[in-house]
Amino acid sequence: MSLRLGTPRQKEEKAEVDVLIIGAGPAAFGAALYSARYKMSVLVVGEFLGGQLNNTSEIENYLGFERISASELIGRFRKHVESYGVKIIQDRISEVKRDGEGFLATTKRGMKIRSKAVIIAIGLKRRTLGVPGEKEFVGRGVSYCSICDAALFKDADAVAVVGGGDSAMEGATLLSSYAKKVFLIHRRSEFRAQPILVEEVKSKPNIELVLDTVVTEILGDKSVTGIRVKNLKTGEERVIPVKGVFLEIGFEPDLPFIQNLGLETDDYGFIKVHGYMETNVKGIFAAGDCTDLWKAFRQIITAAAQGSVAAHGAYGYVEELKLKDKKTPSSP
Amino acid sequence: MSLRLGTPRQKEEKAEVDVLIIGAGPAAFGAALYSARYKMSVLVVGEFLGGQLNNTSEIENYLGFERISASELIGRFRKHVESYGVKIIQDRISEVKRDGEGFLATTKRGMKIRSKAVIIAIGLKRRTLGVPGEKEFVGRGVSYCSICDAALFKDADAVAVVGGGDSAMEGATLLSSYAKKVFLIHRRSEFRAQPILVEEVKSKPNIELVLDTVVTEILGDKSVTGIRVKNLKTGEERVIPVKGVFLEIGFEPDLPFIQNLGLETDDYGFIKVHGYMETNVKGIFAAGDCTDLWKAFRQIITAAAQGSVAAHGAYGYVEELKLKDKKTPSSP
Repeated sequence: MSLRLGTPRQKEEKAEVDVLIIGAGPAAFGAALYSARYKMSVLVVGEFLGGQLNNTSEIENYLGFERISASELIGRFRKHVESYGVKIIQDRISEVKRDGEGFLATTKRGMKIRSKAVIIAIGLKRRTLGVPGEKEFVGRGVSYCSICDAALFKDADAVAVVGGGDSAMEGATLLSSYAKKVFLIHRRSEFRAQPILVEEVKSKPNIELVLDTVVTEILGDKSVTGIRVKNLKTGEERVIPVKGVFLEIGFEPDLPFIQNLGLETDDYGFIKVHGYMETNVKGIFAAGDCTDLWKAFRQIITAAAQGSVAAHGAYGYVEELKLKDKKTPSSP
Repeated sequence: MSLRLGTPRQKEEKAEVDVLIIGAGPAAFGAALYSARYKMSVLVVGEFLGGQLNNTSEIENYLGFERISASELIGRFRKHVESYGVKIIQDRISEVKRDGEGFLATTKRGMKIRSKAVIIAIGLKRRTLGVPGEKEFVGRGVSYCSICDAALFKDADAVAVVGGGDSAMEGATLLSSYAKKVFLIHRRSEFRAQPILVEEVKSKPNIELVLDTVVTEILGDKSVTGIRVKNLKTGEERVIPVKGVFLEIGFEPDLPFIQNLGLETDDYGFIKVHGYMETNVKGIFAAGDCTDLWKAFRQIITAAAQGSVAAHGAYGYVEELKLKDKKTPSSP
């Protein structure tokens, strides 16, 4: 299946639609299908066709398909949505602003889209620490994926894993069989990971727990040489020499493009939704992994369902606007 | 596709499972799929394989299938779930009681099922008025479906429609082209139906609105001859002679079998859910049309998603119970 998408023909292209759907994963497809069935004009703008589905190969948990490849399922979703004439544009929304009663979005390639409602279905991106040295040493000692990169640290004297969830535990355990020593850095004194995974970590003699501690800097020259850490209880700072730092600190939605609208998020940065996937900003709806609904259970079927519900919510909003426009006599 | 299901072999059959799923529609299938994937033992007991899907012929809004017949989709759902070894039993749960930390359910055919958790996915049944004469005259003047039965009242002097929602409006409008006179009885002074449908009703000269009024009795001999109504504002009672009464008063879950557990419902009788489809009763989860989540948007995809989420919730609950059982030393 080709992943090629429609692209804007020229920099200054403009569009005006009832609903702009941001994202191109299952939530966006669910939203697009129902938006079109509600006879709204709709445009889908997303960077990655299929979203998170691209990180899987075979899918066995989407009800109705015993087993289907991710690319085939993406293809079916796309075909279903396109059968209603919905356009999918591969681009990134760089900003969304208020524009009268609706919104004005700008894409990275310069396209301008006016819409009455917006459905955010952007999924998640890996969370970063945001400390000095992090960006500089990505791929040179800093990694966000223990499973991908552990083998690169075979026989290293020491590595650090940062985090307190399941993936941090799994990462530390895996790395303990490659590196001679693993420091597991966590900002709290308790792990939120499953007890069985914590027990496994504690059973490894070469994993040292460094609790109540945050990383304040990643040090290095050509590649990582160590991390500066600070104990939150004592205030004490020290440097731990390591060759690698694995940041297993979870995911969050990438929201700067829309934060100027005062979009409300929870403590972890997920978009707060209520009712029919409404956000706190009138006219903006959200669906899928980026929302705070069922956050610990991010599945294709739940994303698609949330998208469909967001379309229902957006339909109600757009109908209300249209009714209001009819009642207000236009100014002379 | 055959709709035949497994049936209990003998009256006294017993089963013991982690999760009992009540219902056999999309919500139940979603719950069964994920329950099985979480390696829980699971039993599905429902009266109607496919649930509400049986009232549709072609489906075009389940993401991934551009167009599929209802019976084929039911078949695919069933096959998917059965591929995990899940048993589906065609029977009706007549009672669910507390049984230690779990539950004991009894079916109409006498099967006893013990389970740690229960997922209610029973869908909805038509609401009834519960007034004298209603049951007696079903099919002899009392109808719950204007679209099905309107033509039977061609040239009747008068009929009544009871309700204030979309289907009451559509029913009254349709009936106004058959019967000479239509009384539209509604207990409030405002309709909750879409404004456009209300306008259509009001444009028909032979529809008379009877507001703030309830039906207290349905009168008749061989068939319906009239209705006794009461104005809620004035207290005045009177009899309106009609040949037919169309009760378009919506749907609600059929919950008597479980109400002894103190299950909380909203004003319309829908099961209140929160978090991962938990009800107010620990260990009981709910999914699909019978819940108060997205009540105005009852779709296959939302039911299936809610079922999956309920399985996730039930898994957490069952794991917790198992952990507790391990920690508590058995009594001597």
